[in-house]
Amino acid sequence: MRAARLHAIGGPDHVRVERVDAPQPGPGEALVRVDAAALNRRDLFITQGLYPGIALPVILGSDAVGTVIAYGPGANGPELGARVVIDPMLEWGDDPRVWSPAATILGMPRPGTLAEYVCVPAVNVHAAPPHLTRDEAAALPLAGLTAYRALVTRGRLQRGETILITGVGGGVQSIVLLFAHALGARCIVTSGSDEKLVRARALGAEIAVNYREDPQWHKTIRSAGPIDLAIDSAGGETLARVLDLVRPGGRVVIYGGTTPQATIRPFSIFWKHLDVLGTSMGSPQDFREMLAFVERERLCPVVDRVYPLDDVAAALRRLQEGTQFGKVVVAIA
Amino acid sequence: MRAARLHAIGGPDHVRVERVDAPQPGPGEALVRVDAAALNRRDLFITQGLYPGIALPVILGSDAVGTVIAYGPGANGPELGARVVIDPMLEWGDDPRVWSPAATILGMPRPGTLAEYVCVPAVNVHAAPPHLTRDEAAALPLAGLTAYRALVTRGRLQRGETILITGVGGGVQSIVLLFAHALGARCIVTSGSDEKLVRARALGAEIAVNYREDPQWHKTIRSAGPIDLAIDSAGGETLARVLDLVRPGGRVVIYGGTTPQATIRPFSIFWKHLDVLGTSMGSPQDFREMLAFVERERLCPVVDRVYPLDDVAAALRRLQEGTQFGKVVVAIA
Repeated sequence: MRAARLHAIGGPDHVRVERVDAPQPGPGEALVRVDAAALNRRDLFITQGLYPGIALPVILGSDAVGTVIAYGPGANGPELGARVVIDPMLEWGDDPRVWSPAATILGMPRPGTLAEYVCVPAVNVHAAPPHLTRDEAAALPLAGLTAYRALVTRGRLQRGETILITGVGGGVQSIVLLFAHALGARCIVTSGSDEKLVRARALGAEIAVNYREDPQWHKTIRSAGPIDLAIDSAGGETLARVLDLVRPGGRVVIYGGTTPQATIRPFSIFWKHLDVLGTSMGSPQDFREMLAFVERERLCPVVDRVYPLDDVAAALRRLQEGTQFGKVVVAIA
Repeated sequence: MRAARLHAIGGPDHVRVERVDAPQPGPGEALVRVDAAALNRRDLFITQGLYPGIALPVILGSDAVGTVIAYGPGANGPELGARVVIDPMLEWGDDPRVWSPAATILGMPRPGTLAEYVCVPAVNVHAAPPHLTRDEAAALPLAGLTAYRALVTRGRLQRGETILITGVGGGVQSIVLLFAHALGARCIVTSGSDEKLVRARALGAEIAVNYREDPQWHKTIRSAGPIDLAIDSAGGETLARVLDLVRPGGRVVIYGGTTPQATIRPFSIFWKHLDVLGTSMGSPQDFREMLAFVERERLCPVVDRVYPLDDVAAALRRLQEGTQFGKVVVAIA
């Protein structure tokens, strides 16, 4: 089969599309023929060597929509031939609070979805919401899981609350906005790009602030009224601002950080009785609830661009440039 | 009446013991004759001008045990002559999550407990747990309220969990240890003083680590097994260490910070799905539950030293030096 494999650390250009043996489903596993995959920052970070213990070569990719074509011994799930999406969180474990030490994410070390076929535990295979196009379905799993857990399981977002979504352009934050709007929240977003802010308004953002052009952006946001919940993955100075901005008794959920360190004022946390809640990926229950929510509300993730598999390096560079709005998809079939 | 009033910013020496008019209880208020007060870092910080909007002169003091001797119009509470303690959190409001904008702490701006008489809302007056001595009862209110909310309401401490208590010498942290031990937790404490660690062991600490003498203190703690909950009010580098030390899925409660800023690694929060929970003081319900818990478990706050009112400046300097273990009490009657 054809697959996109990373052969050396050093960025997207070290990913090569080549022929490798197709996988065979072992006990408890499902074999999925991939129609489309989607990229995540994680894929880019792996090419850049930003994780420990990267074993090469490896097939990248955590997101996929495809067709389940075989089950290994003892495995079952959606009927053969069904259109499925894959929960990229492998072996989360029994504790809804946190993943187990055995947990991994599809696409390193386990071979990922940027290939014509992928083998995963059958419990990770779910019927795709039927209203989604191929590319929308490919865009959903990792970002939808992360966004749902951040908003609902951790953030406990309630209808009518005001939410602040920082850096709205990325794949996860665009889905955070989509979900938050559907949950009945009043959405405030920030971005460094006016173009992204226009897109965010179309997705339901009521207030959209350009932090590059408005040096007083935090004051602009403060004047918009109390913020009940903020979702941040920027870290650094943005996290410090967010902690200062959220109302007393409010919540801040962080699911990532692009800077290794952040200098915060603990005073904001204790004086305002804040909940600062960490999250990453999500549990099997989070994934099931997310799929049901997307199907019930007929939500469609935003697809930025679709690249053919041969152009996977260009697709990764698109993430690297940071100009995308929504998810970058790679068509396989 | 005699009272300790702060006349100028600049430290404990600007507190003068002098004669002032005794207060009269207004509508909804109780008049309490104070037997003993206790000091908090807040009193010291006020003398140092570390809060905004300090109006001088002001009678300091948030903690008191005494006798309720009169009620104003429409007020009721414990019977006249009863020995009472005062909940120092005034006008918390209706939201158990966070205080209202009207909330203040007894002892600035409202005249405090370092006086022969103090007037407070009658709802803040509660029968003192009968097993406590005068000085233990004086030591309890503010620190007990803060500790109880940090451990129980916010920290959700469960029997059998392991808790890390940083900087165990202070008034609140010594009560955090007392309460956590009574709640059936395995207690790990840190301090920069071996003498304080000996005291902490006597209060039930299983592991006591001197962070000054053991530069690898965080490794020592890590080797003691997973930490479910940490309670910190140091901030700064200690907060960053605590976030790194707590187990995946664990909680960190912060109720203060002696440094204005802390540089943390957001990765610790999101990768471990931590709850970082701010708290300060506590609600009326927290106070009632705390008193019932102290009475039921017959817990006795640790009293460091007792000073006569005339030596209140020396008592404040004791806090400033930071060598105390437990609460510094000022005898009034």
